Amino acid sequence: MTEPEPSARLAAFAAGLRHEDIPGPVAARAVDLFVDWVGSALAGKGVRPVETIAAFARAMGPADGPCEILIDRSGTSPLFSALVNGASSHVAEQDDVHNGSVFHPAAVVFPAALAVAQATGASGRDFIAAVTAGYEVGIRVGAFLGRSHYRVFHTTGTAGALAAAAAAGRLLGLSAEAMRDAFGSAGTQAAGLWEFLRDAADSKPLHTAKAAANGLTAAYLAKDGFTGAKRILEGAQGMAAGMSRDADPARLTDRLGTRWALAETSFKFHASCRHTHPAADALLRAVEAHGLSIGDIVRVVARVHQGAIDVLGPVDAPASVHQAKFSMGTTLGLIAAHRRAGMGEFEAHFRAPEVAAFRERVSMVLDAEVDAAYPARWIGKVSVETVDGRVIDARVDEPKGDPGNTLSRDEITAKVMGLAAFSSAATGAEMERTVPSLFAIEGVNRLERLMPAGGGGR
Amino acid sequence: MTEPEPSARLAAFAAGLRHEDIPGPVAARAVDLFVDWVGSALAGKGVRPVETIAAFARAMGPADGPCEILIDRSGTSPLFSALVNGASSHVAEQDDVHNGSVFHPAAVVFPAALAVAQATGASGRDFIAAVTAGYEVGIRVGAFLGRSHYRVFHTTGTAGALAAAAAAGRLLGLSAEAMRDAFGSAGTQAAGLWEFLRDAADSKPLHTAKAAANGLTAAYLAKDGFTGAKRILEGAQGMAAGMSRDADPARLTDRLGTRWALAETSFKFHASCRHTHPAADALLRAVEAHGLSIGDIVRVVARVHQGAIDVLGPVDAPASVHQAKFSMGTTLGLIAAHRRAGMGEFEAHFRAPEVAAFRERVSMVLDAEVDAAYPARWIGKVSVETVDGRVIDARVDEPKGDPGNTLSRDEITAKVMGLAAFSSAATGAEMERTVPSLFAIEGVNRLERLMPAGGGGR
Repeated sequence: MTEPEPSARLAAFAAGLRHEDIPGPVAARAVDLFVDWVGSALAGKGVRPVETIAAFARAMGPADGPCEILIDRSGTSPLFSALVNGASSHVAEQDDVHNGSVFHPAAVVFPAALAVAQATGASGRDFIAAVTAGYEVGIRVGAFLGRSHYRVFHTTGTAGALAAAAAAGRLLGLSAEAMRDAFGSAGTQAAGLWEFLRDAADSKPLHTAKAAANGLTAAYLAKDGFTGAKRILEGAQGMAAGMSRDADPARLTDRLGTRWALAETSFKFHASCRHTHPAADALLRAVEAHGLSIGDIVRVVARVHQGAIDVLGPVDAPASVHQAKFSMGTTLGLIAAHRRAGMGEFEAHFRAPEVAAFRERVSMVLDAEVDAAYPARWIGKVSVETVDGRVIDARVDEPKGDPGNTLSRDEITAKVMGLAAFSSAATGAEMERTVPSLFAIEGVNRLERLMPAGGGGR
Repeated sequence: MTEPEPSARLAAFAAGLRHEDIPGPVAARAVDLFVDWVGSALAGKGVRPVETIAAFARAMGPADGPCEILIDRSGTSPLFSALVNGASSHVAEQDDVHNGSVFHPAAVVFPAALAVAQATGASGRDFIAAVTAGYEVGIRVGAFLGRSHYRVFHTTGTAGALAAAAAAGRLLGLSAEAMRDAFGSAGTQAAGLWEFLRDAADSKPLHTAKAAANGLTAAYLAKDGFTGAKRILEGAQGMAAGMSRDADPARLTDRLGTRWALAETSFKFHASCRHTHPAADALLRAVEAHGLSIGDIVRVVARVHQGAIDVLGPVDAPASVHQAKFSMGTTLGLIAAHRRAGMGEFEAHFRAPEVAAFRERVSMVLDAEVDAAYPARWIGKVSVETVDGRVIDARVDEPKGDPGNTLSRDEITAKVMGLAAFSSAATGAEMERTVPSLFAIEGVNRLERLMPAGGGGR
């Protein structure tokens, strides 16, 4: 008997994954990632492109429904819940990331899973099993599509459709065969181009919104017998054929069921593009170790991987808070000035004169060691030249938030509370009640609304 | 002053196109294409994948709305009208095609335009101006993306999102700048892979459904200030960079406002993939000229362009009516047996023993002349070997339905009546009343429902 094809194996895994198959620490990490995601979803409240997508959802969708839009606590159908929560959770640049695949799983997996779970009244354990399926699928698809794909495509948009389909399909109880159909329909809708970054345009939350909604659509269609390509990933006219030059099918099924890619996922600590984080952590180490203030620094050379140059290089003088999060110079300037590059620092200071001037003193150079380690490891290296003529080299081997340097539940709670407060999506008192219930999701028999009734109104 | 960039010029053209700018014969052809499209949209009624998408729309969308779903005459919001009409109009393989770009404009442009026109109460003249903008944009984008794109991507899905955005955006009164944003949001959602053909999977109507719905989404978002990439087509991380190797930016703006690509669009005559039509017409010429019946024919060699081999080649023994429409052997078998390859012939006879046996006697070979002329001209050439040892060569230079060999309004009426009757989407009496009103659309002050109230129920 021949080996089943990669798409088939991956679909069978996602369809069949049960909570009891998942090691305890991995399930616990899934819960942590869930709570962290709620913070990011709430953080999108009031952000113009997110509110525009929410208004579109209200105009096109039903007046009410079983599924929650977190930024305003309104009810809608699964499609629009996935769409709006997908948009809102990827706009603050605080959602999680898987280093090896350069993929942001939470922003696409949780919106789809929450929508279907609320529509079907799934248990917390099934919800966690489904999101784990979503992470395992999405991360492997992202890694499969490879670096050539990421050069032009926003992997979270493309691989994200498959991840969302896996999570939604698992909650809809798809058979292995139907899950494969869902993958086919998701992959043939997969899209998302980096071109928008050059203009600081609004596309990024649209990519996650559509990945979540399209994956959910694929799963619902498959549930109703709608078929899809059986080899959408590896086929001769499939995703890799059209959108990658270095796709590696072995990555699709790499140690399925024994290697848990979900547990390799990093929490975001700084509120900027993940490509800035290693250098930001290295600079933080340098300024703390040597007691430097922003005025002490003449020049910073960030020693980076090629992907950082590709994504961050085109951003010159950022015109918006969002674009500033893709500016290495701005991020390092905030670290130098405030020793933090959080939501508040970006909002208040991204174009402060000292930060803008510092930005001009930052350069990126390709570093052979960093580039060779990437994307498995994101090493941070900076060389800091001081006014008194010293050159200080600093490095971090695992940036804050990575699995070996992860966030505690207290740190996650603080982050989520901060995000909700920043966007005014919920009061402190509401979050005090909500966060513990989110950490307790595995004990819920029938998943209902996450946020307290009332408050957070439109 | 430098020349504006192609995306900017194309967007400005689409935003500014007025009915009075369109030559009379071109506007008249747009009306013909509209009536022809209604036939295709009605033909999707009862087809499983279309009905599945319609059920999804009912589950996820509002209970009613100003926009019409043609297969069941229900009302919904613009998004779901575009989605379901986009699905239904591309499933019978009877919708129009632009040869040079291998793009099916009607199935993506009309669903988006009709939805917005019904939502906004647009005039018939504005509707025709908007669909013309959609055709001009979509055809140029398809041509721009080129043959390398079409090898893996279903151009109607990808370029279709831009075409739908142009039509919807024109009806929403977008400025040139906002139209460019709509193009950016449409292009970054653009998707559709040919992989599904290998499995006779259901993706094709999903591609047109999503292209229409995504383009409409992009236009509504742009109306509300949501920005998109300014160079989504030609930029370094745009559509061509990610999905083509032979993109030619000059094609995007080729004679805008003087060359009317809409008027180059062909009506479909046979109910099969357009790649089969030139050979089908050539075989029809041979069997009619020599009075051949199916039993007289030992072998047919269809001399084709490479695109026909790429799309039709993987289809061996068709397992469904839909897949049979991508089988050169089946299509030629129906012509040989019935001298027609219409909806009825495919449905009743695609696996009749004589047709299946004939299929095995058909081969395709790459023809240098045909391939060199393609895609500007679709030449049909066949060599027919008869039982009595003759070899009959036949050719057509312009297949039936092409601009130089077009359908009359009577032929369009007959085709649309036949499609509605085939799917039972409307009675003959209803169509007798409806078709003349469709041809008179330019005189309508405020576009409302196309189909008579009652009837055609769910």
